Amino acid sequence: MQITVLSGGVGGARFVRGLVTSLHQRGEEGADDATDTVTVIGNTGDDITLFGLRVCPDLDSLLYTLGGAVDETQGWGREGDTRLLMEELGALGVQPQWFGLGDKDLGTHVARSLWLAQGATLSQVTDRLARRWGLPEQGVRLLPATDTPIETHVVVPDGDGERAIHFQEWWVRHGASLPALRFTVAGLAQAAPAPGVLEAIRGADVVLLPPSNPVVSIGIILGVPGVRDALRGTRAPVVGVSPLIGGRPVRGHADACLAPLGVEVSAAGVAGLYADLLDGWLVDDADAGATYPSRVAVRSLDLLMRDTEGAARIAGAALDLAAELAGGTR
Amino acid sequence: MQITVLSGGVGGARFVRGLVTSLHQRGEEGADDATDTVTVIGNTGDDITLFGLRVCPDLDSLLYTLGGAVDETQGWGREGDTRLLMEELGALGVQPQWFGLGDKDLGTHVARSLWLAQGATLSQVTDRLARRWGLPEQGVRLLPATDTPIETHVVVPDGDGERAIHFQEWWVRHGASLPALRFTVAGLAQAAPAPGVLEAIRGADVVLLPPSNPVVSIGIILGVPGVRDALRGTRAPVVGVSPLIGGRPVRGHADACLAPLGVEVSAAGVAGLYADLLDGWLVDDADAGATYPSRVAVRSLDLLMRDTEGAARIAGAALDLAAELAGGTR
Repeated sequence: MQITVLSGGVGGARFVRGLVTSLHQRGEEGADDATDTVTVIGNTGDDITLFGLRVCPDLDSLLYTLGGAVDETQGWGREGDTRLLMEELGALGVQPQWFGLGDKDLGTHVARSLWLAQGATLSQVTDRLARRWGLPEQGVRLLPATDTPIETHVVVPDGDGERAIHFQEWWVRHGASLPALRFTVAGLAQAAPAPGVLEAIRGADVVLLPPSNPVVSIGIILGVPGVRDALRGTRAPVVGVSPLIGGRPVRGHADACLAPLGVEVSAAGVAGLYADLLDGWLVDDADAGATYPSRVAVRSLDLLMRDTEGAARIAGAALDLAAELAGGTR
Repeated sequence: MQITVLSGGVGGARFVRGLVTSLHQRGEEGADDATDTVTVIGNTGDDITLFGLRVCPDLDSLLYTLGGAVDETQGWGREGDTRLLMEELGALGVQPQWFGLGDKDLGTHVARSLWLAQGATLSQVTDRLARRWGLPEQGVRLLPATDTPIETHVVVPDGDGERAIHFQEWWVRHGASLPALRFTVAGLAQAAPAPGVLEAIRGADVVLLPPSNPVVSIGIILGVPGVRDALRGTRAPVVGVSPLIGGRPVRGHADACLAPLGVEVSAAGVAGLYADLLDGWLVDDADAGATYPSRVAVRSLDLLMRDTEGAARIAGAALDLAAELAGGTR
């Protein structure tokens, strides 16, 4: 089975880890054959150049989480990391200091920046990193949404006017507390899907949308020219998992991202964003009673991903719904 | 008193630290006034770009040693450093792994590379780093010999032919064990002395040559167009300290560097390299009986720099000889 996932960072990474676990469990139970492959299309709108180094937070969260090397408490960065290099930059007065990069983590960024400077594409760089973290052995292929450098900026009020700041400055430094007037993504209109991205969507048996941020994670991937059309056109059922439970994000600041779009901060509001491409939608039991787009099959369950087993349970439910939809009369 | 020092890395850094200590002791004794300033002109021929980062080993040894942050055992790098970033690069298959860069140390290289990329000169970068390490408070100004990127390469035999490798590859990776046919310095002929370098030599009251490598450290500085002429022309006495004791380098591989020049591996051989600009020459007692260039005043003493006090003693002897020469009939 070819499974394609559009993913943001921490939440998406935990979902994909659960998905891999779920597929492994199903394989042992004989429910699936052994040829499952998971293609993860990762958001690159969060990418940022810090200290001359290219940082891809969402791709790295996916790599470290699947590689068993993530700092589980943070959900991002490397387990057991130190910050000696950043402390030295701080002593030298180099800004910004609000984005925490560990010494092990910086190894990734130094290597990535070096390879990019040598002419490798982000896809090629990501493939090398994926091998480091054993993704192929898990049947997982990680693709950046695009090899074109893109960066999400957030337009915020500034006195009587407004100004644009990098997404990470808004998200990490300000904790999404500055009101976002709108999001702009530098480079997005001219971005090309990375090699394999459209094929992975068109050729999939199932497409999954994890409980990632619908605006600044999955929304960015959908904005890469061609991706949304591919999702609308694929014969695979597209099944998503709500990132909101009872109108609140499980993690992160999806509420602050939905507000400027005028979208209701709810599982139904997010489903509406995906209405043109969504076939199935998993919501929390708390949201079972809401009204969803009519063509979308909605199922409710406990959506809190407490651990990998919990993520596997939710991913399994998404696969079940996809199977149900594929067997139906789409 | 304006003291100008031409310095390589570890040995030069220890000598300069001893010089600062000696000046402090003399100041307390009332032998000198409080306005001593030391201008150190550091070798940049060792510089190397690793992993896309610009590394200046000799300047950094000077900075860390004077800043009290050097790894005393190694003589270079930061005290109490770790190598998590390099280990990650190793796990990613990024070469070379033979040049050890610690995590704190890499903070310097990341900042330097960032500032250079932003358009700062190496002089400006070095000045920022010098402030970090408290050099101005010690009356020390550190100048790179040149802001022009230069790199020393070593031509070594290769089958029936020869090949050039970076100085650091020869020195660090191979421990100077490959026979050097000759040294070439990319960029040297077109290099300009960094701002202040020629003025510091011309306007000095004393010029000191520490026991640094005469070929690949001081020799490179002397090769920057204009520097050698300034030394020949300065009215200040030029006093050097032999890097060889009993025909052997105290540290490093000066012997392997002198051989391809056809220069005798001895204190007298090195003095001959400086004969056109040298006024005073400190040698070890073991070398007191040798024949030196006739116009050079030679004094012998115990030249082993066992610790900072020992370095201060040698630096003080160099200052004494300079004072003697300045009071004489040059």
